[in-house]
Amino acid sequence: MPNGQRLQRGPMMTGGTPLRSLDEDQLLARILPAYGVTDELLVAPGDDAAVLRTTERTIATTDTVVLGRDWLDAWSSGADVGHKVIAQNLADVAAMGGHPTGILVTLVADPELSLEWVLDLVAGLADACAAAKVAVLGGDLSSAPAGVVMVSVTALGRLDGEPVLRSGARDGDVLAVYGSLGLADAGLRLLQTGHEGRHPQAVARQRRPEPSLAAGPAAAEAGATSMLDLSDGLLRDGGRIARSSGVVIDLDPAQLAPFVEVLTDVLGAEAALDCVLAGGEEHSLLATFPADVLPDGWRALGRVRAPAEGEEPGILVAGEVVMHTGWDHFSGS
Amino acid sequence: MPNGQRLQRGPMMTGGTPLRSLDEDQLLARILPAYGVTDELLVAPGDDAAVLRTTERTIATTDTVVLGRDWLDAWSSGADVGHKVIAQNLADVAAMGGHPTGILVTLVADPELSLEWVLDLVAGLADACAAAKVAVLGGDLSSAPAGVVMVSVTALGRLDGEPVLRSGARDGDVLAVYGSLGLADAGLRLLQTGHEGRHPQAVARQRRPEPSLAAGPAAAEAGATSMLDLSDGLLRDGGRIARSSGVVIDLDPAQLAPFVEVLTDVLGAEAALDCVLAGGEEHSLLATFPADVLPDGWRALGRVRAPAEGEEPGILVAGEVVMHTGWDHFSGS
Repeated sequence: MPNGQRLQRGPMMTGGTPLRSLDEDQLLARILPAYGVTDELLVAPGDDAAVLRTTERTIATTDTVVLGRDWLDAWSSGADVGHKVIAQNLADVAAMGGHPTGILVTLVADPELSLEWVLDLVAGLADACAAAKVAVLGGDLSSAPAGVVMVSVTALGRLDGEPVLRSGARDGDVLAVYGSLGLADAGLRLLQTGHEGRHPQAVARQRRPEPSLAAGPAAAEAGATSMLDLSDGLLRDGGRIARSSGVVIDLDPAQLAPFVEVLTDVLGAEAALDCVLAGGEEHSLLATFPADVLPDGWRALGRVRAPAEGEEPGILVAGEVVMHTGWDHFSGS
Repeated sequence: MPNGQRLQRGPMMTGGTPLRSLDEDQLLARILPAYGVTDELLVAPGDDAAVLRTTERTIATTDTVVLGRDWLDAWSSGADVGHKVIAQNLADVAAMGGHPTGILVTLVADPELSLEWVLDLVAGLADACAAAKVAVLGGDLSSAPAGVVMVSVTALGRLDGEPVLRSGARDGDVLAVYGSLGLADAGLRLLQTGHEGRHPQAVARQRRPEPSLAAGPAAAEAGATSMLDLSDGLLRDGGRIARSSGVVIDLDPAQLAPFVEVLTDVLGAEAALDCVLAGGEEHSLLATFPADVLPDGWRALGRVRAPAEGEEPGILVAGEVVMHTGWDHFSGS
């Protein structure tokens, strides 16, 4: 969750059939048929391990969501959680310039958790994987202390060209985004204040981010010099590119303005700017390109320059340091 | 944990420096330098994703451990937990006939958890990976409710030949094991009763199982018809081979006897037999081979035959059904 707004611990979904009423094999028999197959899936889940057809380079990443920290059942269905955890993992594959091919998913849950919630989660996982033509390669089920539910996903992908790292931004590049900015955080704020009707698209982005996965490998092919997906906010993630690359990124308020304006009516100017600069969980792609190469669909946000003498690499807005630091998992700052 | 002996919830390791006193970047800066590199690691952790050199077929599997369910801090150090979770994942890769190449690891923990415990865990993970020449490809850190600590690992491996499935056992095959039987469960019983000095090797097997990873691909090459690693006990896992393959496996008491005898002095005859038949977490390899092919180091345990008319596939001991069902995660039965 972004902006240091640690969610309160929410009640777990109970009712219906508790998980503990099934043994592991019975539960797997309810889950595995939901998953489709792809041409790359050579051995499907159910053995010690699955086998995936691969090429010379395979991308691997993992990301986990925890009830009460990353979602509340009052705001997100099981299917929403499944969609979201897949989206955020596949966005990391796309942000390297790769095509997602497979995922593994682990559910660690209180045995009192509702089976119906789990099957809804599985439906969301399966839908999101089918939409991205990604195979489910396996998973694990484990019991947890009372009230604990977490879903951990590992995603694999195929890399056809060179990986696009965070460290490749160069003096003279343009920083650009593919997709929205601040929408997921705006949706979270509307959910928190009970105003979700004011901007359904923002709420939908919070519940089910839909990164444009094809834009990642397309950007790589077009010559992106650095890329990541926006998990923790523009300033925090842009700062990662800047520090990894040893450059200064200077955001242009005029280029940010359209993103802020679409949220101002709903949230007010200050919160709208907060969302755009520091809103997490957006999972749009952020990349740098040589100034003469900005592929279709990418919107420029600022410029990359070499640090001045004695200047630290980092991110600025109109030449100034600004204090929106985004979300940190442990310190909550 | 095997045998339905659900562990009590143990106290989490606190003291020293709590995790919450570091932000995520500071914590990663303490963790990432512990991990070595391998020739297969093309892009190391620290970007959106890592990149692994792969070949045509990649094995993928995942397995998770939870404090209080899979370990107690009173019995296992952080390094023990790290070793064990790697061993159980790599054993799954070996049991398909593959060579492990990479892992991803997720820690979900109460922010009050001791940083020193986490660094000990990381040392164990790093040691186990280095011993197996496996690269750490990435991971995730997430906070969890009070008292919760879990470690989730995904392992990848290279498959050079055909995968060895559970479903290939055939009439006339021999069932055999590579490594010990019942030792890890014996170690658990000794820990539970405060008698760990009676059989240090069993206790060590419980804390740090050491599957013979090279035996997996060697068995595949020698013609193994089915294989898995022993996670949930000989009867339960052998039953999986039998049902997947549509065969009856008949264990030979004379062939089991040497495994039982080495534990009888320590545990008594009945408990020793329990450990051998139903003890989990052993992570030795169990496989079937054509009768004329039993590679070095494998010890025969019984025979595979076609079901008689009207007989269900399953596992027997000297022709009889026996009632040791091993461990089930959710129902605890």
